[in-house]
Order: sequence, then structure tokens, then C-alpha cells
Amino acid sequence: MPELYRELINLADSDMYPFHMPGHKRNVQSTPLKGAFRCDITEIDGFDNLHQENGLILEAEKRAAKLYNAEKSFFLVNGSTSGVLAAISACVKENGTILAARGSHKSFYHAAYLRHLNIDYLPIKMLNEYGIFDGYSGYDVERALDEGGRAEAVFITSPTYEGRCSNIEEIAKVCHRKGIPLIVDAAHGAHFGLGEGVPDSAVHLGADVVINSLHKTLPSMTQTAIIHINGNLIDEKKIKRFLSIYQSSSPSYILMSSIDLCIKEMEEKGEAYCEKLLQYRNMVGKEAEGFENIRIPGTDILQDPAKILISSRFSSMTGQQLYDILREEYHLQLEMAGEKYALAIITGWDTEDGILRLISALREIDARGSSVLPEMSAESDNEDENFEVCINELPKRALFLSEAWDDDKEIVPLSECEGRISGEFINLYPPGIPLIIPGEVIDKKLIEDISRYLAKDLNVQGVFQVKNGENKGIIGKRGLVCVKPK
Amino acid sequence: MPELYRELINLADSDMYPFHMPGHKRNVQSTPLKGAFRCDITEIDGFDNLHQENGLILEAEKRAAKLYNAEKSFFLVNGSTSGVLAAISACVKENGTILAARGSHKSFYHAAYLRHLNIDYLPIKMLNEYGIFDGYSGYDVERALDEGGRAEAVFITSPTYEGRCSNIEEIAKVCHRKGIPLIVDAAHGAHFGLGEGVPDSAVHLGADVVINSLHKTLPSMTQTAIIHINGNLIDEKKIKRFLSIYQSSSPSYILMSSIDLCIKEMEEKGEAYCEKLLQYRNMVGKEAEGFENIRIPGTDILQDPAKILISSRFSSMTGQQLYDILREEYHLQLEMAGEKYALAIITGWDTEDGILRLISALREIDARGSSVLPEMSAESDNEDENFEVCINELPKRALFLSEAWDDDKEIVPLSECEGRISGEFINLYPPGIPLIIPGEVIDKKLIEDISRYLAKDLNVQGVFQVKNGENKGIIGKRGLVCVKPK
Repeated sequence: MPELYRELINLADSDMYPFHMPGHKRNVQSTPLKGAFRCDITEIDGFDNLHQENGLILEAEKRAAKLYNAEKSFFLVNGSTSGVLAAISACVKENGTILAARGSHKSFYHAAYLRHLNIDYLPIKMLNEYGIFDGYSGYDVERALDEGGRAEAVFITSPTYEGRCSNIEEIAKVCHRKGIPLIVDAAHGAHFGLGEGVPDSAVHLGADVVINSLHKTLPSMTQTAIIHINGNLIDEKKIKRFLSIYQSSSPSYILMSSIDLCIKEMEEKGEAYCEKLLQYRNMVGKEAEGFENIRIPGTDILQDPAKILISSRFSSMTGQQLYDILREEYHLQLEMAGEKYALAIITGWDTEDGILRLISALREIDARGSSVLPEMSAESDNEDENFEVCINELPKRALFLSEAWDDDKEIVPLSECEGRISGEFINLYPPGIPLIIPGEVIDKKLIEDISRYLAKDLNVQGVFQVKNGENKGIIGKRGLVCVKPK
Repeated sequence: MPELYRELINLADSDMYPFHMPGHKRNVQSTPLKGAFRCDITEIDGFDNLHQENGLILEAEKRAAKLYNAEKSFFLVNGSTSGVLAAISACVKENGTILAARGSHKSFYHAAYLRHLNIDYLPIKMLNEYGIFDGYSGYDVERALDEGGRAEAVFITSPTYEGRCSNIEEIAKVCHRKGIPLIVDAAHGAHFGLGEGVPDSAVHLGADVVINSLHKTLPSMTQTAIIHINGNLIDEKKIKRFLSIYQSSSPSYILMSSIDLCIKEMEEKGEAYCEKLLQYRNMVGKEAEGFENIRIPGTDILQDPAKILISSRFSSMTGQQLYDILREEYHLQLEMAGEKYALAIITGWDTEDGILRLISALREIDARGSSVLPEMSAESDNEDENFEVCINELPKRALFLSEAWDDDKEIVPLSECEGRISGEFINLYPPGIPLIIPGEVIDKKLIEDISRYLAKDLNVQGVFQVKNGENKGIIGKRGLVCVKPK
């Protein structure tokens, strides 16, 4: 069976001369990217069309669907972003309602904005011990659906960025009893279900639409992803329509062949990949058992073995300090820093040398005993008090997201925002949650929370400086974007 | 000044170990893409963020803006598609009106769909001699604006796919007199303004937003593009907001570094590139002067020297036959075939050998004298009669695009469609025009036209087979997607 990637090389090796796009004519010689340039084409004869596939690309997608046990799979060259936008647009009617967690990816909110959706929220559930989002049970979703009662689809992120899973099997059953589809943002779980010892895939557990970022944990290039669909609650034509809206009409053959290569690699070596990943994970976990200051939760807590959350909660270090030490002193670049943790991603493509460097660095950092906080233990009843971030209640909504984000706005000094309607997203990273979204009412607690986060130098996005206008004397002060009163 | 591309290589050469995305860990060794994998990262320290750029990417965008004389330029990793979606979304209020040519790219229609826009159309103008779209004058736009009177922006494609330009300078003046922005889809004109002898750029000619596909005519990878903004009619923040909606939150550093490399190349060698392009164009043009059967219009007609339209109008060949001969007998892959022409793209990255192969092939094909149609000449009064495709009048509109495309639909046999409202786009390629869009009324002439195009094996997209339902006995017949009557 012809493979996309091999056909591109065959073409490059042939005497067929390109009087077509791209303009580089596969003739860029001077860079390490030259191998990629050599395979970079457009939709010429024999190379199919991502948006109306019936040849090479369709065959490649079929192989991917088989690997993931999906009825249909479509390649994404605009990231999971385009998959989330398309899935929500196709599954929920305009002005309809969707049930989701507050901490969903921004592409979720963008879809809700574009399609004028009403969002029903699941209650915020945190794993307080680590300051990260918890997963959801079938019961959580059932209760939220019963309370809201109008949702046309449920949107769940599993695994989370930090590797925590929801009970997709239960949630899918709840959704199907109600006759609505379950969309799973499994951007971080492309490796799930591909071998022994990693969690099962959301496709296999009964989700109707599943989106995987192939680049996050598998050997595929950044910006590549895949969307799987299953069952009769999904209108495949609508999914395809929205994918053709949200994705370039000139999709990259480099990205598509990278997806094809990745699928082939996982077909052939998926088991070995997962074995290696688990071996690496166990090496780190075993070492961590002896640590006194830093903690690494096991896969009983963070089910995804590709995520290593290195908690500094029982030391005086912040997550950022831990991250910086690893980067600056040990030249280990981690994925991100939380308030009291740093997060590493490992995969089957790591080298043993790399893993040993991480272990050795963590051992040394742990041994810097002076930074241990006395009188603390994981079993402490007051563990929440270690965290600045404690998000429980959602702001009240005055306008729909789509109304408020498009409305006329002004920047109002933080101290004067109480009671005003937000005109922007204010996000806290991590854990990556909107503290408020356009259309919600800014209350006193939110102002206090934002002030506290800012004072602690946490990463709050969506706070601006007051620039001009009526508020003389306070230019330069911090302010929030508010909807102008009518 | 640090360059994105060089910094990626420096990183790859360093001992910094990646405990972050992408999952391939820059460790894919076995393919010609390995050089690209080696430079493929995510937003780690020091590598900026496309959606909130303030470092390397901002510097790279500033260099691009300088090259194009734009106030601001933003890199696009989801093609011109994302630029068109963002430009229209930012420049026209939801439910607002935009003036555009009927033959605009599908991303234009997608933006109109997503944002519930009303579309005022410019009259259809064809260059009948070649069966392609003509450009527009300031007068054309002024008249259309005066007739419509509510448009908040004008959207013009220049150059067209085939290389025909509109008078952007005049059109910009008209727009600015009316206080509305001009958006130019210059996807095919990324090389404009970068050297002597190529047309001036739309940015320089006064357009407010210009979108260029860098991959189409310059040495950048497929799916890369750039958007330029100028003047005070454009809300930069809104453009950025929509770009972050329509583009992946995990943008490819391969694509971004390809853009950066392309800009650098054009800074250093833009003049030489344009010289070479013109030299190639002149070689082909000079040879074509002696042809008896095939014709190649000069740059006085198709201003873009990167496009070589090879007309078979005065021979018995169709455009597809010409295209197939070039491909199968001469191993020259052209960009596309029209009813009576084949289109080649040439750039400064072609080789002289490639151009000589094209010339030699065309000379031989032209010399196949037997295929000349007798009694025909370029000056014939009846030249229109050579073309099946003759589009003049637009269908009537019954529903807005966004209403109709989301409505319930059914497939109706072609013969029974008269008077029904279309639920789909029906496109004719080339010239790439919607014969009808969702919400418009199917009339008798359209049914006749579609039947004729289908009989001639032209590429009509959006015609389906009747599958099931009420219409027993006619299953398998051709049908159109119609809005279900209420």
C-alpha cells in the first residue's frame, strides 16, 4: 500500500518538474530543513486533497482509524485547536448549550464564542494536594446535566495537562443515556490505548469525538493532531465542513506526512514505545521514593505516565524556582512551572541518558536539605493553605460570551471594577483557568484574588494598564477590560 | 540580531535536554525530515509565543513588516485562510455587510458564514478571451458601494489565481473616501513589490489589510502566509484576537522558521529573485511569439510574471488535454487546467533547465499542426462561443448564507430543483466560482448550466447522488442539496 511519506520521496527522486506551488520548487539547499523542503508539495495529481480525500490521504487516515479503533479519523494540520473548534461547531447548534469544565482549553471558549453557545459548567474540582485540576466521574456529569438540562453535548478534557484522567467510560454512558455526544479533548493522550500499561483511549471507552495532539506525546511535528469520530450521534459531514473552515486550504504535506510517519511508527512500535515510556517512568518513580523534599505523585494519582509532576510543596521552593534550577544549573528544559510544581513530559523517544540526567538532578536538588519546611507532611489537614490559588465559585453571568466579547469596551482601574461586566478573558496560568470570561460580572472577591495573584507574581493574563480617557491621574494603574455601559 | 531559525539550530546543538513537547524529542533520525524534526520545538524559554509575541517572533515579524513597508505584519501558520478569516472577522461587525467579488476564495465565504455577514457582490467581470476573472477598477467598486451603501469593508482578490490585477490604488482611495477599509487577498502576490519589474504591492498601494501566501511564489513552506495591516481603520487587537482563534495554540516552529528564512532570503536576494523570474518569463514569452496554436498572454494582460497561462483556445485541445500531455509526455507538472488553458507557476527558484524543458515541450506541442482549428483567430467576434462557462447573473437570495447552511436539508433530483433554496455551495473549478451559495434560489438557467457543465465533464463540486427517502425510482440520479421546506 502506498504511503504518503514514501510517495513524496519518490516524487522528489523522479524527473517530474514542478511548475506549481510551492514557490521554493523543492529547491532550497542551504538549510537543515532542506529534506523537508524537498518533500513539500501542494495538491498535485496523485497526492489527494485533505479536504476531500479519496486517495493517499484517505488511506493514511484509515490506517490511523484502525490503530485507534475509531470508525473515522481525520488528520489535523492546525492542531487540536481546529479539532476542538470543528467538534463543538458540529455537535452543538448555534445558540445551543454545552456542558464543560471551567478549565477547558481556550479553543473551547473560542468555539463557544464563534457559535454563540451557552456554557453550563461542571463544578470546579481540584486535587488540592498539588494545586491542579481533578478529573470527573459519571456522577459529576449526570448531576450537572440534570441541573442544567439543556446541554446538546458534553466536553471533557482527559487526561489533563498534568495527566489526571476522568472516568470516560462512565461519562460516555451518562451522555448516551441522555442521547447527547461526548467530546473528549484528549490532546494530551495521543499515546493512550497504544500499548500495555498506559491508560485506555477515550475512543475505546465510548467517547463520540476524540481529539489527540499527536505532537504532544508521539513522534509527530508540532501543530499536528487527529480527530476520531464514532457512533451515530455525530454528523460526519458537519465535522468535515467545519474542518475545512478552520483549516488552511493549502495544508502542509510536511505536517501530513509527519502524521502518517507517526501512525506507521506506532503501528510497528507502539508496544515498544509504551514499554520504554513505563520503564523511564518507573526509573524516575523509584528514585523519587527516597526523596525527602520533592515529591512525585505516582500513576495511581496522575494516570498518564508521560507526565512527571515534581512537587516542591514540602520545600521552600516555588515551582518556578525548581523549574529554573533544572534549566539553568542542569540544562534540563521542562514543560512548565506551577505554583508549587514543575512538570516534565517524557515519551518513548527520550534517551536513557536524558532520564538519568533528570534523576541525578532531582536527587541533588532534593538533597539540598536546608530548604525543607519543618513540620509539614503530605497528610496535613491544612494542605490548602500552602496555595495562593483556590478557585471555587464561578462569577455570575450578565451577558453571553459572544455578546460581551464583541461589545464596546474600556479599561477600568482594578479598584473600580466591582459590579462591572468583564469584556475580556482573565486567565491564570497554571492551572490554566479563566478567572472570568467576557459577559461575567466582576465581584469583590475576584478583585481581591487578582490583586493577590499579581502581588505573588503569578501569571495572570488579561490585566492591562489604564492608558487614557476619563480616568486622569490613574494612568498606568492596573485595570480590567470592561464592557462600556450602554 | 538573533534569528528564529538560527536560534533553533543553536538549541539543537546545545546540551539542553527537552522534557517538554513535542513528543519526538527532536530525536527522529531515520527520515529526510530529520533536519526539520531537529528544529521542531514548542514555546519554551527564549523562543517567544506567536500569539503574544515579544521576543524572537516579534523581531522576525518586524523584519517582515519592514520588507513589505507595512506598519505591522503577523506570521500565519494556518495559511492565508486564517488571515482572510481574521481580517474579515475583525473588520466587519457580526451581521454586517461586506462588498466582494463573487469569485472570492472559499475562506471569504467561510468568514461570511461564521460572522453572519450579508454579502454585496461586485458585478462578475470576465476576461472572455481566456475564460478567467478580470480585475476591478476604482469605478467598479465605487458604483457597487453606492448601489449597496451599507458595506463596512471591501474584499478584493488581486492578483487573481491567473495573475490578473485590480487597480488597488484607486480602489483604496474609493474605500478611504467612504471611511471603510480595503482588505486585499493577495495570496498569489507575495513577491509583489520586492523587486524591479514585478507589480507594486497592495500594501504600498494603500490597502488596509493585505494577506500574502508566502508559499505560493516565495521560498517558504506550504501553509505559511503573512498578514499586513496599515492605517487607522484597522483594530490591531481584533485582528490578533481572531488570529488566535483561527490558528493553532501549538504553532509549528518549522513553519515559523520557514517564514523567517523566506523573509531573510527576500531581504538579501529579493532583487535578484525578481530579475531571475522576469528573465524566465521573458524566455517563455519570446518563444511563444512564434507559436501558431497555443497562446501565452503577456504581462500586459496577466500582470503577474509568475503565472504563465498557456491557452489552447486556438487549437482543438482542451486545457486538461494540454495539461495531461505536459505531465505524461514531458514530466512537467503544472498548477492546474482550465477549460481552454493550463497554468504554470514560475518563480526565482526555478532552474534554467526546468524553464528550457517547458519551452521545448510547448514548442513541440505547438508544432502538432493538425490540431489547429481552421477559420479561427484571436480577433474573432464570436470568441465567447468557444467557452462553455459564461457566468453573468447571480441567483436571487432567499436566506442568509449562515441561516441556510445550518438549516435542515435534503437532496433533490436536479430536474426538480427549480425554485428551491440551495443548502450547499455548488462550485465550478476553474475559474473557481460558486454557481450558487446556501440561501440562494435555484432557477432554470442554473439547472441548465449545471447539466451542461456535467455533460462536458467540467469539475462541478456540490452535486450529489440522490440516496434514499421519498424520491423512489430516482435513486442514483444527480441531485442538489436543498433547504427542507418548513
